[in-house]
Amino acid sequence: MKIARIKVGDNIYTGRIEGDYLFSDKGPIELRDIKWLPPCEPTKIIGLALNFKEHAQELNLEVGKEPLIFMKPPSSMIGHLENIIYPKGAKFVHYEGELAVVIGKKCRKINEREALDYVLGYTIANDVTARDFVTNFFRPPIKAKGFDTFLPLGPYIVTRDEIGEDIRLDIITKVNGEIKQRGNTDQFVHSIPRVITFLSEFMTLLPGDLILMGTPSGISPIKVGDKIEISIEKIGTLSNNVVEEK
Amino acid sequence: MKIARIKVGDNIYTGRIEGDYLFSDKGPIELRDIKWLPPCEPTKIIGLALNFKEHAQELNLEVGKEPLIFMKPPSSMIGHLENIIYPKGAKFVHYEGELAVVIGKKCRKINEREALDYVLGYTIANDVTARDFVTNFFRPPIKAKGFDTFLPLGPYIVTRDEIGEDIRLDIITKVNGEIKQRGNTDQFVHSIPRVITFLSEFMTLLPGDLILMGTPSGISPIKVGDKIEISIEKIGTLSNNVVEEK
Repeated sequence: MKIARIKVGDNIYTGRIEGDYLFSDKGPIELRDIKWLPPCEPTKIIGLALNFKEHAQELNLEVGKEPLIFMKPPSSMIGHLENIIYPKGAKFVHYEGELAVVIGKKCRKINEREALDYVLGYTIANDVTARDFVTNFFRPPIKAKGFDTFLPLGPYIVTRDEIGEDIRLDIITKVNGEIKQRGNTDQFVHSIPRVITFLSEFMTLLPGDLILMGTPSGISPIKVGDKIEISIEKIGTLSNNVVEEK
Repeated sequence: MKIARIKVGDNIYTGRIEGDYLFSDKGPIELRDIKWLPPCEPTKIIGLALNFKEHAQELNLEVGKEPLIFMKPPSSMIGHLENIIYPKGAKFVHYEGELAVVIGKKCRKINEREALDYVLGYTIANDVTARDFVTNFFRPPIKAKGFDTFLPLGPYIVTRDEIGEDIRLDIITKVNGEIKQRGNTDQFVHSIPRVITFLSEFMTLLPGDLILMGTPSGISPIKVGDKIEISIEKIGTLSNNVVEEK
């Protein structure tokens, strides 16, 4: 099942997508002249750094034994087809195509074997990062990754049953139609069950909470006017344009 | 005005406190046999590191030109009189008594002169930290500061009009009745308007969002059985006991 949140005029609808329609408890809505919203409403967004070996190598950093995590603020989220605003004065902004895990049930201190039972499904994330602000490693990169519009997400959640337990999904990021990143989720340094277990050791995960599983190698700067498309097998394509800050 | 959120049985009430009563739109409730909840529901919680010079010195770190920020997950919040759970196996857990700023109105790209207009009020925070997990400065300390119960908050919000514009408030942290931290908010390296302006340069602040303004010097390890009381002038006292993890 595909679950989406959309906005039509001032109204927000959540429901399942079938063909060209979203079916909410208010009936079917044609997916035309709508605004795609981020498909979930997380209380926290956890990102993984360096969860693909080749990406760690391109940054000249070593992969850790434990998941290397950071947080993005919910205010950074935008939906499919919304614009990424390029911050005035920034010089090194890049995309990061990623699989996003959406938590479905409250959990704490769970083990790896049961971890996937707490997953609602998967969606696509672009963990946009302004490397300009990653100058001091004493400083967690809240600003680098926390700008408004720096987390395109969607278009929808594909529920876990459609992906299965053996998660091997191709991820491809294109900029203006040209392939820039190509990876597969079977290259994760830390698997999805491992990361959920690691997080749940110290904090409660809640429905809608998001885990961004890290990006493959192939990051490069983007500029105003670029179109970023991230495609993940069995899910779909998240597309966003980069616009100037006004 | 003092604004609190409390729980009585399964019901949650938000309202103003006068004497021994909370006045919600459901009428007055006596403040007896109630559970204090965190007094706001933030979409994001921003903490400041090293915002008192003497605290930076005790950690042997240098104060930065820009506010040094981190995030805590909302799942770490507990209310007044709730228990801090000491993580099994941790060795260096400490309190950090702090003034917390509660945002009242949505804002983005505001200037320092208008910044306080967007503040609803102030409350008391204990930014509990397990220093065991601050071993690698490439790694933002999400785990160190993100455990469930690691953010006692409250008991209530005191609205801005009761504090005024010239914010000089004594902060005192006691452990088992003994004074451990003593500071005043006039010693902030980065002022409240400066920090709000800095954050709003890149992200939208929303009603209920929290900014923890950093802790004075005097941190020390706590242990199971300790009672931590943080008092801030014109606000009140936040009190929490430390209990064993089960």
